[in-house]
Amino acid sequence: MTDPRYTPLAQSLPATVPFVGPETQERQRGAAFLARLGANESVFGPSPRAAEAMRQAVDGVWMYGDPENHDLRQALADHHGVSADNIVVGEGIDGLLGYVVRLLVEPGDAVVTSEGAYPTFNYHVAGFGGTLHKVPYVDDREDPARLFARAAEVDAKLVYLANPDNPMGSWHAGADIVAALDSLPDGCLLVLDEAYVECAPHGTEAPVSVDDPRLIRMRTFSKVHGMAGARVGYGIAAKGLISAFNKVRNHFGMNRTAQAGALAALRDRAWLDHVRSEIASARDRIASIARDNGLVPLPSATNFVAIDCGRDGAFAKAVLDGLIAQGIFVRMPFAAPQNRCIRVSCGRPADMDAFAAALPAALAAARS
Amino acid sequence: MTDPRYTPLAQSLPATVPFVGPETQERQRGAAFLARLGANESVFGPSPRAAEAMRQAVDGVWMYGDPENHDLRQALADHHGVSADNIVVGEGIDGLLGYVVRLLVEPGDAVVTSEGAYPTFNYHVAGFGGTLHKVPYVDDREDPARLFARAAEVDAKLVYLANPDNPMGSWHAGADIVAALDSLPDGCLLVLDEAYVECAPHGTEAPVSVDDPRLIRMRTFSKVHGMAGARVGYGIAAKGLISAFNKVRNHFGMNRTAQAGALAALRDRAWLDHVRSEIASARDRIASIARDNGLVPLPSATNFVAIDCGRDGAFAKAVLDGLIAQGIFVRMPFAAPQNRCIRVSCGRPADMDAFAAALPAALAAARS
Repeated sequence: MTDPRYTPLAQSLPATVPFVGPETQERQRGAAFLARLGANESVFGPSPRAAEAMRQAVDGVWMYGDPENHDLRQALADHHGVSADNIVVGEGIDGLLGYVVRLLVEPGDAVVTSEGAYPTFNYHVAGFGGTLHKVPYVDDREDPARLFARAAEVDAKLVYLANPDNPMGSWHAGADIVAALDSLPDGCLLVLDEAYVECAPHGTEAPVSVDDPRLIRMRTFSKVHGMAGARVGYGIAAKGLISAFNKVRNHFGMNRTAQAGALAALRDRAWLDHVRSEIASARDRIASIARDNGLVPLPSATNFVAIDCGRDGAFAKAVLDGLIAQGIFVRMPFAAPQNRCIRVSCGRPADMDAFAAALPAALAAARS
Repeated sequence: MTDPRYTPLAQSLPATVPFVGPETQERQRGAAFLARLGANESVFGPSPRAAEAMRQAVDGVWMYGDPENHDLRQALADHHGVSADNIVVGEGIDGLLGYVVRLLVEPGDAVVTSEGAYPTFNYHVAGFGGTLHKVPYVDDREDPARLFARAAEVDAKLVYLANPDNPMGSWHAGADIVAALDSLPDGCLLVLDEAYVECAPHGTEAPVSVDDPRLIRMRTFSKVHGMAGARVGYGIAAKGLISAFNKVRNHFGMNRTAQAGALAALRDRAWLDHVRSEIASARDRIASIARDNGLVPLPSATNFVAIDCGRDGAFAKAVLDGLIAQGIFVRMPFAAPQNRCIRVSCGRPADMDAFAAALPAALAAARS
C-alpha cells in the first residue's frame, strides 16, 4: 500500500499557509486576545439589518444556497450600474483569486505583483505553478507603472494591484489607475483588489468601463461591511470573464445565510456611513497613539494604519511580539522596507485604549 | 485590447454546471415550489441547538473563522476515535472533492467512477483535465469490484464510490467495501463518499483503519444533519493526505457561523435520532405512494427513494416534468437504465401529501 500519487505540482508545494490565524496564536499563548486588531476585520460589526437577516436565514439553512447567487448579483449589479452578468460572487476575494488564477495560470506562466503585497494571491499563483515576478513598492505605495512595465517584460498573464493597498494603507486616485492601464500589455489581466475602497477617499474607485477586458475588480463584504466570517466576495468584470468562472467555481459553495446577510448589508447605506465615521475616528486615534510614542503613522485609506516604528524589520517584529505578549493581536508587512512598520486595524475606543496601554511597554522591550 | 489568455484547459471546459438549482427553476416557472424534494436536503432541518449556535455566532461574524477549524476538527476526531490530524474540514464535500482531484489529477490522468454517479465529482475531474472512465451499475448498485478492476486497467489515480449510493439509494455493507479494497490497485486513491451514511443500516460505515492510505472517507453536515446551506463537509484519511489539503485549500474559506453550527450539531445525537426516525417514516410513505400508483420503490439507505417508473428515461422525465409543473421539485438519475426512476427526497407529512396529490396527474400526463 503506497501513498496517493500526487501531481508533480502538488508534490512541489510547501505545506506553509498564507496566514496564521489569531485563534492559533490564542491557543499557543493559552489566553484570548484583549484586542483583535491584526486581520483588518471590522470590529464595528455588520449592519444590524444584515445580522438580523443572517439570523432569520438560519431557518432556511437546511436548503442549499442558490448556486446562481441570483438576488445578490442582481442587487450588486443595480448598485454598481452594471448587469448581473458582470458580477461573480464567491467565497471571499480569496476564493475568487483562486478561481481567476486557475483560469489563466498554468505551470511556468508569469504573474506580477508587488514585493510584500497580499500573500494569499501569491499562494494561489504558486498553487497553480505560476512564476511570480515582484516589483518593489515606491514610497510605500504599489506602483502601477512599474507593475505593468514588468508585466510587459515577462509576458505576464496576470498582474495584481490593491487599491487602496494592504498592508500599507496607501492609495492612488482611481483615474490614475485607469490612465496607467494604457501601459498594461495586451492580453494581461489586471486583478484590481478594491477590498478597502468603501472607506477610501472619494475618487479612489477606478472609473472603468465594465466591458473593459483588461481588468477584474474585486470587492468584499469582509472589511467595511463587517462580515469577514460570512465569506462573501465578488468580482466585477466583462461578461466573458465572469462567465468563465462558471467553468471552475464551486457552484454550491456559498453559505445561504451569508447570501442573505450580504443582500441586507448592501441595502443599509446608513450603517456603512456609520462605520466609515468610526473608521475615521479610529484612524485618528491610532495615529495619535503612534505619535504619543514617538512613532510615525502613515496616511491610510483603509480600516487600518501602518505605523512606522523607525528602525528595521527586526525592531518592528520585536514591537509586534511585545504587543502580542500583552494580548494585542496585530500584524506587520512581510517585506523590507515596509516591514519597519506594524499594522494596526481600526477598533472601538476600548480596543484602542488597550493598544495605547500596551504600546509603551512593547516599545521599551524592543529597545532594550 | 484582447481577452485574458485562459489556459488551454480552461478554454476547453464547457460552460455547463453540475446541477440547476431549484431557485433557477422557480424563477423560470414564476412560482415557488410547493415541496422541495429534489436535492436530498433535510426538510426536517438542523438540530435546534445547531440553529441556535448559528444565530448566536452571528454576533462574531465580523471575525474570520478559525482557518484551522480547530474545535470542529477536534470534536470530529473525538467522535470518530481518530486524531484531528486525520480530519480536513471544507466547504461541503463538493469543495473537498475539488481539492482532492486537484492534488492528484493533471491533464490526461485516469479517474474511475460509475456511469450516472455524482456529477459534481465528474465536474471537478473534467475541470482539472482528468480522463473519466465509467463502469455501469450492477442491479442499481455501484460495484466496487468492477470499479477497482477498471482502475487497474486504466492505471487510475482516483476512483469514486458512494456508499450509500446517490441517486439510487442502494448500499453495501461497509465490511464488503473493505474486503474489496484488496483489489484496488496500488497507488490508486478511493474517494468513499459516505454523505448519507448516518441514515443507513448499521454496518454500512466502512470499518477501515484511519491510517489506511488507500482511501479518504467524505462526510457532510448537509444531509442528515440538515445544514446544506451552511456548507460544511469533512474528510477522514491518513495524516499525509489530510496534510496535503493544506497546500491547496482556501484556508479562510469556512463560514464562522457554519463552524459553530456543525460543532453544536455533532453534539446533539438526540436530534440525529429524531431525524433518522422521520426519514424512516418518510421513506415508507414515499414507497407506499409509489405502490399506490403502480410504481416500484427501490430499497433505500438514504434520505431519498428512487422510484422505478417502469419504462424508459423519456417516460420518467415526463413524470418528473409533470411533478415540476405542479410545484413538486424532484430530480432523476442521469444514466440508463437508472434513469427509468425519479428520485424523491424524504419530507414532512405535508411535503409527502403534496407529492401524493401530484403524482397521479403527472403519471397520467406522461402516459398520454
